[in-house]
Amino acid sequence: MSDPAKTPWSGRFGSVPGGFQQEFGASLGIDKRLYAEDIDASIEHARMLAARNIITPEDAGQIERGLAGIRADIESGVFAFDPADEDIHMAIEAELTRRVGDAGKRLHTARSRNDQVATDMRLYAKRRAIDLGHRLLCIRRSLARRAEVEFGTVMPGYTHLQKAQPVLLSHHLLAYAWMFTRDFARMRHAHEAADVLPLGSAALSGTAYPIDREAVATGLGFASVSENSMDAVSDRDFLLDLTYASALTQVHLSRLAEEIILWSSDEFGFITLDDEFATGSSIMPQKKNPDFAELVRGKTGRVIGDLAALLVVLKGLPLAYNKDMQEDKEAAFDAIDTVAGSLRVMSGMLDTMHVHADVMRAGALGGFTAATDVADYLVGAGVPFRDAHEIVGRIVREAESTGRTLQDLTLEEYRVFSPEFGPDIREAVDLDSLVSRRTSPGGTGHEAVAEQMQRQQASILADESWLRSVER
Amino acid sequence: MSDPAKTPWSGRFGSVPGGFQQEFGASLGIDKRLYAEDIDASIEHARMLAARNIITPEDAGQIERGLAGIRADIESGVFAFDPADEDIHMAIEAELTRRVGDAGKRLHTARSRNDQVATDMRLYAKRRAIDLGHRLLCIRRSLARRAEVEFGTVMPGYTHLQKAQPVLLSHHLLAYAWMFTRDFARMRHAHEAADVLPLGSAALSGTAYPIDREAVATGLGFASVSENSMDAVSDRDFLLDLTYASALTQVHLSRLAEEIILWSSDEFGFITLDDEFATGSSIMPQKKNPDFAELVRGKTGRVIGDLAALLVVLKGLPLAYNKDMQEDKEAAFDAIDTVAGSLRVMSGMLDTMHVHADVMRAGALGGFTAATDVADYLVGAGVPFRDAHEIVGRIVREAESTGRTLQDLTLEEYRVFSPEFGPDIREAVDLDSLVSRRTSPGGTGHEAVAEQMQRQQASILADESWLRSVER
Amino acid sequence: MSDPAKTPWSGRFGSVPGGFQQEFGASLGIDKRLYAEDIDASIEHARMLAARNIITPEDAGQIERGLAGIRADIESGVFAFDPADEDIHMAIEAELTRRVGDAGKRLHTARSRNDQVATDMRLYAKRRAIDLGHRLLCIRRSLARRAEVEFGTVMPGYTHLQKAQPVLLSHHLLAYAWMFTRDFARMRHAHEAADVLPLGSAALSGTAYPIDREAVATGLGFASVSENSMDAVSDRDFLLDLTYASALTQVHLSRLAEEIILWSSDEFGFITLDDEFATGSSIMPQKKNPDFAELVRGKTGRVIGDLAALLVVLKGLPLAYNKDMQEDKEAAFDAIDTVAGSLRVMSGMLDTMHVHADVMRAGALGGFTAATDVADYLVGAGVPFRDAHEIVGRIVREAESTGRTLQDLTLEEYRVFSPEFGPDIREAVDLDSLVSRRTSPGGTGHEAVAEQMQRQQASILADESWLRSVER
Amino acid sequence: MSDPAKTPWSGRFGSVPGGFQQEFGASLGIDKRLYAEDIDASIEHARMLAARNIITPEDAGQIERGLAGIRADIESGVFAFDPADEDIHMAIEAELTRRVGDAGKRLHTARSRNDQVATDMRLYAKRRAIDLGHRLLCIRRSLARRAEVEFGTVMPGYTHLQKAQPVLLSHHLLAYAWMFTRDFARMRHAHEAADVLPLGSAALSGTAYPIDREAVATGLGFASVSENSMDAVSDRDFLLDLTYASALTQVHLSRLAEEIILWSSDEFGFITLDDEFATGSSIMPQKKNPDFAELVRGKTGRVIGDLAALLVVLKGLPLAYNKDMQEDKEAAFDAIDTVAGSLRVMSGMLDTMHVHADVMRAGALGGFTAATDVADYLVGAGVPFRDAHEIVGRIVREAESTGRTLQDLTLEEYRVFSPEFGPDIREAVDLDSLVSRRTSPGGTGHEAVAEQMQRQQASILADESWLRSVER
Repeated sequence: MSDPAKTPWSGRFGSVPGGFQQEFGASLGIDKRLYAEDIDASIEHARMLAARNIITPEDAGQIERGLAGIRADIESGVFAFDPADEDIHMAIEAELTRRVGDAGKRLHTARSRNDQVATDMRLYAKRRAIDLGHRLLCIRRSLARRAEVEFGTVMPGYTHLQKAQPVLLSHHLLAYAWMFTRDFARMRHAHEAADVLPLGSAALSGTAYPIDREAVATGLGFASVSENSMDAVSDRDFLLDLTYASALTQVHLSRLAEEIILWSSDEFGFITLDDEFATGSSIMPQKKNPDFAELVRGKTGRVIGDLAALLVVLKGLPLAYNKDMQEDKEAAFDAIDTVAGSLRVMSGMLDTMHVHADVMRAGALGGFTAATDVADYLVGAGVPFRDAHEIVGRIVREAESTGRTLQDLTLEEYRVFSPEFGPDIREAVDLDSLVSRRTSPGGTGHEAVAEQMQRQQASILADESWLRSVER
Repeated sequence: MSDPAKTPWSGRFGSVPGGFQQEFGASLGIDKRLYAEDIDASIEHARMLAARNIITPEDAGQIERGLAGIRADIESGVFAFDPADEDIHMAIEAELTRRVGDAGKRLHTARSRNDQVATDMRLYAKRRAIDLGHRLLCIRRSLARRAEVEFGTVMPGYTHLQKAQPVLLSHHLLAYAWMFTRDFARMRHAHEAADVLPLGSAALSGTAYPIDREAVATGLGFASVSENSMDAVSDRDFLLDLTYASALTQVHLSRLAEEIILWSSDEFGFITLDDEFATGSSIMPQKKNPDFAELVRGKTGRVIGDLAALLVVLKGLPLAYNKDMQEDKEAAFDAIDTVAGSLRVMSGMLDTMHVHADVMRAGALGGFTAATDVADYLVGAGVPFRDAHEIVGRIVREAESTGRTLQDLTLEEYRVFSPEFGPDIREAVDLDSLVSRRTSPGGTGHEAVAEQMQRQQASILADESWLRSVER
Repeated sequence: MSDPAKTPWSGRFGSVPGGFQQEFGASLGIDKRLYAEDIDASIEHARMLAARNIITPEDAGQIERGLAGIRADIESGVFAFDPADEDIHMAIEAELTRRVGDAGKRLHTARSRNDQVATDMRLYAKRRAIDLGHRLLCIRRSLARRAEVEFGTVMPGYTHLQKAQPVLLSHHLLAYAWMFTRDFARMRHAHEAADVLPLGSAALSGTAYPIDREAVATGLGFASVSENSMDAVSDRDFLLDLTYASALTQVHLSRLAEEIILWSSDEFGFITLDDEFATGSSIMPQKKNPDFAELVRGKTGRVIGDLAALLVVLKGLPLAYNKDMQEDKEAAFDAIDTVAGSLRVMSGMLDTMHVHADVMRAGALGGFTAATDVADYLVGAGVPFRDAHEIVGRIVREAESTGRTLQDLTLEEYRVFSPEFGPDIREAVDLDSLVSRRTSPGGTGHEAVAEQMQRQQASILADESWLRSVER
Repeated sequence: MSDPAKTPWSGRFGSVPGGFQQEFGASLGIDKRLYAEDIDASIEHARMLAARNIITPEDAGQIERGLAGIRADIESGVFAFDPADEDIHMAIEAELTRRVGDAGKRLHTARSRNDQVATDMRLYAKRRAIDLGHRLLCIRRSLARRAEVEFGTVMPGYTHLQKAQPVLLSHHLLAYAWMFTRDFARMRHAHEAADVLPLGSAALSGTAYPIDREAVATGLGFASVSENSMDAVSDRDFLLDLTYASALTQVHLSRLAEEIILWSSDEFGFITLDDEFATGSSIMPQKKNPDFAELVRGKTGRVIGDLAALLVVLKGLPLAYNKDMQEDKEAAFDAIDTVAGSLRVMSGMLDTMHVHADVMRAGALGGFTAATDVADYLVGAGVPFRDAHEIVGRIVREAESTGRTLQDLTLEEYRVFSPEFGPDIREAVDLDSLVSRRTSPGGTGHEAVAEQMQRQQASILADESWLRSVER
C-alpha cells in the first residue's frame, strides 16, 4: 500500500490504490506534454482569484513565481517527475505546494480537476490545430510549386487505374492541393470548437465563488466561455473534431502516397524518389523502396482506429465526468502526431522527387486516351452521344486488335466506322490539342489550370492570414 | 450472358457481365432514392446545354418534359425499375431515351456518370443536412421545454455515476441541448462542404464543350463550382463530414439514452416512460422496458461502423474515380437514416416521459452531495483548500459510519472536526440554498440556468433562421 | 395509437408504441430471413414439450403441422407478413395461433424470445459458416487450378511494389490459397462457437419446467447445451467470430483484388479480365474497367465497419439481454453476404482471366531481380553477406546508369567490382535457373511449388471432408 | 544527411534519409521489446547454418556468444541503443558485428529482415497468448471463488436494466466466467495461428541455401513451418487473431465493469469497492469513485480501435511485404497490454469488493420479479401461456398502483383476476423457492448452479493443463 498522503483525496480512505492500480490509472506518462497549458491556465486562474479577492495578491504572486520556476525546470529537463503522481496536474500542484506552501494549496480554490483538464486539453487542441494548419499550408505550397514547375507536362489521367484521358500533371497535383485546402477548413472548425473556456465549471455544477470567467478567457485567449458546466466537463467533441480532421487528412495523404508508390514502380516509371525519401533492402541490393510513402499509407490505419476509439469511449456515458474520458488523450495525441509527421514527410518527398515527363507523355499516348474526343467529334457532327460512344467502342476494339493507337489510324480507317469523320479528326486526337481544349472551369486545359493555380495561391494567402490572426 | 444492348458501354465488349456480377455491381436498390436529385440535375444540365447551343431548344424541351413524366411516374409508384439497370442514373436515362428518342441520348453530352453521381449525392447531402438540422432543432426544443417546465427540480449530479453535487434537472437537460447545438453546427459545416457543384468535370478532366457551370450552379442552388475536375469526381469528403456529424450526434444520443435507461430503472426511479415509448416482455408480464432508448444506444455501433467504413473505402485510392466509391452510399444513407430516426424517437420520449421530482430531490439529499460546500465553507474561513478537503473527507467517513447525512449533523459535531465551523454551516448545507449559490456563468444556480435557457432559445432562433435561408 | 391486442405483452400497458416507434423498433424486415431456423427450433421445442408431458401430443401435432404450413407459405411467397409484427418470431407465432388456436399459444411455454432469438441466430450462423466454407473451398480450387495450368510461368515478385526477385506465378497464386485456408479454419472455429444450444435458458434464469435440453440439442444438431442461462441469452460472441472471420477474408480478397487491378492496368499488362468480369465507361469508349475487383476492395470498408459496429454494440452492456442486441443482425448479415458475394465474384474472375505469360516474364527480366543471387554468389565465394550486399548495390547503380540488366553485364564488368566473380556468374543470373534454385520448403523453386500444390490439394480434401461431416 | 555507413543497404544510394525521415521510419522505440525473440531466433538460425555447413562452427559459436552477451547487456540495462538504428533487428546485428566482426555479418545469410521480423513477432505472439491465457484463468478463478463464497445470495436478474427475475449472485458471476472461458479458447486459437515458422522464406521467395527449416522450427518450438514464402512474409493474420481475441475479452470486461459501476452506485448499493480499487475526488471529499472499472470500460475504445487499425493497414496491400506492415506492432502491443492490465485490475477488484447480500435480496423482492412464476402457475393450471401473460400483466398493474408486491397480495386478490389461483400461489412467489425451482441445466436453481460451478472448475483445470503443455 502506498502513502496515503500522496493523493489529493485520501482523507476519507483507509487505504489507497496499490502499485499496479496506480500505474494502470496514471496518465502522467501521456499527459505531461500538457505542462505548459496547465501552467498557463493556473496562472490566469490565480490572477483572477486575486482580482476577485478570493485569494490574496501575495498568494497569487507566489503561485505565479512558483509555476514559472516549475515551467523553467521542466523545460530545462531538471524537473523530477514522481511516478506516484497520477497526472501532470497533480505533479505540478504538488510541487508548487512544496515550493510555496499554503499559497499552492489555495490555487485549487473554485476549480476542479475536471474543468482544469478540459481547459488544458482545449488550449492544447487549439495549438495543435494551428500547427496542423501550418503543415497543411506547407504541403499545399509544395504541390503548387510542383504544379508551376511542371506546367505543360502531360500524363495519362486514370479512372479505375485504367488510362482514361490525358491531363496535365499540374492538374493532377492540384487535385490534392484542394483536398488539403478542405482539410485546412476542418482544422479551422476544430480550432473554433476548442476555443471555448470550460474553467469555472468546477467539478460539474459551477461554483459559488465570485469568479470572473470572462477575464480568464481573455487572459488565455479563448473566444468565449462554456454555457453549461455539466456539458463543459464532459465534452470532448473538440478533440473528436480535431481527430476527425486528422483522419480525413491522413486518408488524403494515403491516396497521394498510393500514387507515389505506383509512380515509382518499374511499371509506371513516372518518378524517381530522392534517396533521402527512399530506403534499401537488407537482402536485395537493387531495391529502392518508397518506404516513407508506404508508412504514410499504413499509418492511415492507426488514425482511423484513433477516431473509432474516441467515439467508442464516449458511447453511452452518462453525465458528467467519467474516468473513461481519461482515454481521450492518447488517441487524440497519436492521431495529431501521426498526421503532423506524415504531412512533413510527404511535403519533403514532393519537393525532392524527380519527375520523368517523357515517360508520362508516352503513357498518355497509349491506352486510347483520345477516345472520348473521337466520340465528341462525332457528337459535334450531329451523332447522338450514345451512338457515338458505341461507334468509338468499335474503333478502339479494332485498333487494339491491330496494335495501333488512335493517333495512328488514317482518315480512311476512321471513315469505315462513320462517314461523319473529316480530315480534322487528326488534330482532334493530338495530345496537346486535346488537353488544351478542356477549357471548362476546373478542367485540365492549360488556361483553366493556370487560373486554378492562381485560386489555390489566393486560398493559401487567405489561410495564412487566418493562422496569423489566431496565433498569440 | 445478358443482352449487350442493355449497357451504355457495350460497343467494345464481346460479352457483358452475367447475372450475378450485374447483381453484385448494381446499386439501383440503394441509389434509387436519388431519383429526384438526378432529375433536377439533368433538367438544369439540359437547359444549360440549350442555352449554350450545344443541343437544340427542342431537344431540351423534350428532355425536360420526359424527365418530368418519369418523376411523376416514380412518385406515383407506376415506374417499373428494370433490375438490369446498373443504377438510378442509367434507369432514368434509358427510360428517357425510350420516351423521347435521340434527344434523350443527347442529355449525356458534356457530362459523365462520374460528375453526375457526384452532383446527385451533393444535392442529396445538402437536403439531408437540412433535414437533420430540423430534427436537431426539434430535440433542442424538447429539452428546452422540459427545462422550463421542470425549473426548480433538484436532482443529484453525478460524476463516475457517484452522487457528486446537487444540480437542477433543467441544467442537466440543457447540457444535452448544447451538445445538439454543436451537432447543428457540424451539420451546417457538412452542408457547406456539399454546396459545391461538380457537374462539368465530366469523367475526370473537364470538357471541351462551351458549358456554363455557373448557370447550372445557380439553377441547382449551389454556392460555387468545383475548382478541379479530378478532385471533383473522386471527392467524398462532404459525405464523410455528414456521416461524422451523424456519428457524433448519435454518440450524444447514446449518452442521453443511457441516462434514460438508468433513470427508468427501479433503483433510480427518476422517471417513468410513457407507454408509447416502452415495450413489454413476451415472458415477464411485469416488465416495462426502455427498448427505444436501448435501440438508440445500440445503433451507435452501426453509425460508428458506417464512418469507419467510409474512411476505409477511400484509403489508398489513386485518382480519379474508382468503383470502390460506389460503396459510399449505403454507409452514408444508413448513418443519416439512423440518426434521423433516433432523434425523432428521443424527442418523443423526452416530450412524454413522467418526471418524479420528489424521488430526484430525495436522491440529492443522499450521498453527501453537500460535501464540497462544507469544504468551501472552511476555505471561506481561511483553511487552505487541500486541508479543508481532508477535513471534510473525515467528516463524511464519520457520518457514513453512523448512517447520517451532512444535513443531520449538529454544529457541535461539525466543530469536533474543525473549530472554524459556525452556526451558518446548517444553511450552507441546505439543498436549495446550495444550488442557488452556483452563480458562476454556466453554473447550476437558478439564475445562471435561467439565463442559460434564454441563450439556448436565442441559439435555436438563430439556427432556425439559417435553415430557412438555405431551404429552397 | 395502435391496437394493443397486436403485441404479446400489452396486458399491463395503457397504450402501446405508435407507428413510428413500431417501425423504429421493428426488425421484421431484417430478421425474416431467419424463418426456417425459427420454425425448425419451434418444432423441436414442441416435440420436447410433448415428450415431457408439458403440452399434449395433440397440441404438439397441431403446432408442427401449423408451422409446416407456414413454412410452405413463406417459401411459396404467399405468406403475408404484417408490418405490425415486431419480428419474425412474433409473425410466425401470431399466425400459428390464428391457424391452430390455443395450441399455438402453448408453444411459448418454457421459453422466451430471448433464448428463442439466440437459438435461431446460432442455427443461422452455423449454416452460413458452412456456406462460407464452401465458397472458400471454391476460390482455393480456382487458385490451385490456375497454379497448375500456369506452372512454369515466371513473373516478378514484389516487395514495396518494387520488383524484388523472380517467382513462379503459381507460387504467387498459392499464397492466396493459404490465406483462404486459414480463413476456412476461422469459419470452422466460428461454427464451433455457434454450435451450442441456448434454448431452455428462457428469459434469463432458466425454467422450472422439466424440459429436456439435450433432446432439443440433438434434434437440432447442436453439439452441446449452454452452461449458463444469463450468458446464453446475452452472448453474441459466435456472431462476432463469424463476422471477424468474414472481415479477415474480405481483407485477403482486397489484397487479391488490388493485384488484379494492378495487373490489368496498361502499365503492368499481366492479365486481361474476361468481358464478363469487367465493365465499360459511359463516356470513354475505350475503357475496360476492373469494376468488380474494385468493388470487392471497396466492400472491405463495410465489413470492417460491421465488425466494429458489433463490438461497439456490446461495449458496456450489463447482463442479461438488452435491446441493443437486436442490432447484432444487420451488421452480421451484411458482413456474411458481402464476403459470400465477393468470394463468388473473385472465383469467377480468376477462372476466366487471361494471363499474359510473356509480359510477366519480360517484367521479371527488368528491375535487377537477380541482384540477390549475385550477392549470394559472392557469399558463396566467401565474402561476408553485408559486404556482398554493398558490392552488388554498386553494381546495380552502375548498370542502371548505363541502362543494362544484370544479365547484360559481362564477366569483366562484374570483376571490376569484385575479383571473386567467375564465369558461372552468367548462369547464376539466368531467370529459370534462379527460380528453380529456391528449393527451401515453401520457396518458389519449381519442385518446392509442386510439393506445395499437393499440400494445398490435401488441405482442400480435408476441409471438404469436415464440411460434409457437419452438414445435415 | 546522415552517415551512409549506418544503414544495411546504403551501397546503391547517393544519400540516405535524413534525421526526420529516420525518426519517422524507425520502429526501435516500439519493437525493442522483441529483443529476446530476436536473439533466440538468431541463435537457432546460426546453429542451423553451421549444421548445414553454410557457416563455420566457429562463426556460429562466436555469434551465439556475442548474442548472449548482448542479451545480458540489454537485460541489465547497460546496452546503449543507438537511435540511428532503424529497428531492434538492426540494432542487435550491428552491435553483434561490432563485437564479433565478420561472423556477425554472416548471420544474415539465407534470411531477410522480412522473415526475421515475422519470426520474432510470432514468437512474441505465442508468448503473449500464453500470458493472456494465464490472466484469463486468474479472473475465472476469482469469479469462481466469489461464486462459491456467495452461494445462496439472491439478487435481481435484469433484462433491459429492468428487474426481471431473481437469480443467484453466483449464477450472475459465473456468466462472466464462461465468457472468459470462450476468450481463453480464442487465445488458444491465436496461439495455434502463430505457431508456424516463417524463417527460411527470406525476402519473399525462399532461398537457394540448403537450409533446414524443420530443425529451426524444433529449436524454437514451432509446431510447423510455413507453406508459402510470399504468404509467410506478408501474413499478419496471427496478430489479428490475437488482437481480436483481446478486443472481445475487453468487451466482456467492459460489461463486467459496467455492472461494478452500477452496483457501487448509491442507487444500487449492491457492493462497496475496496479502497485499493477506488479513488477520491480532488474537489468532492465524499466521493469514492470506481475509477478503475471506468478505465477498463473506457479502454475498450482503444482495443476496438487497434483491431480496426490492423485491418485497415492490410486492406488492399499487394504481395509480398510492404512497409505498411511495420504498423502492425504498436496496435497489437497496445491491445495486448491493455487487456492484460485490465484483466489484472478486474481480478483484484473482484477479489476485494464487499458484497451487500441484504441489499441484493431486498432488490430482488421489489420489481415484481415473481411475475413470470405467477404466469407459469396459471399455465400449470391449464391457462394458455399468452392468456396467462396478459392476466399477470393486469395483476402487476393493479399491485403497482397500490404500492404492493406480488408477495403482499392475498389469495382473494389473486382470485379476482383468475379463478385458477389456489393457496399454493403464496409459495409459488416465495423468493428462495422461486429460484431453486429453476432446475433446467444452466438455470439459476441452486442445484443447477452447483453443477455449473463444478463444470467451470473442470474447464479451468483443462485449460491450465493446456497452458502447461505449450509453455517451454
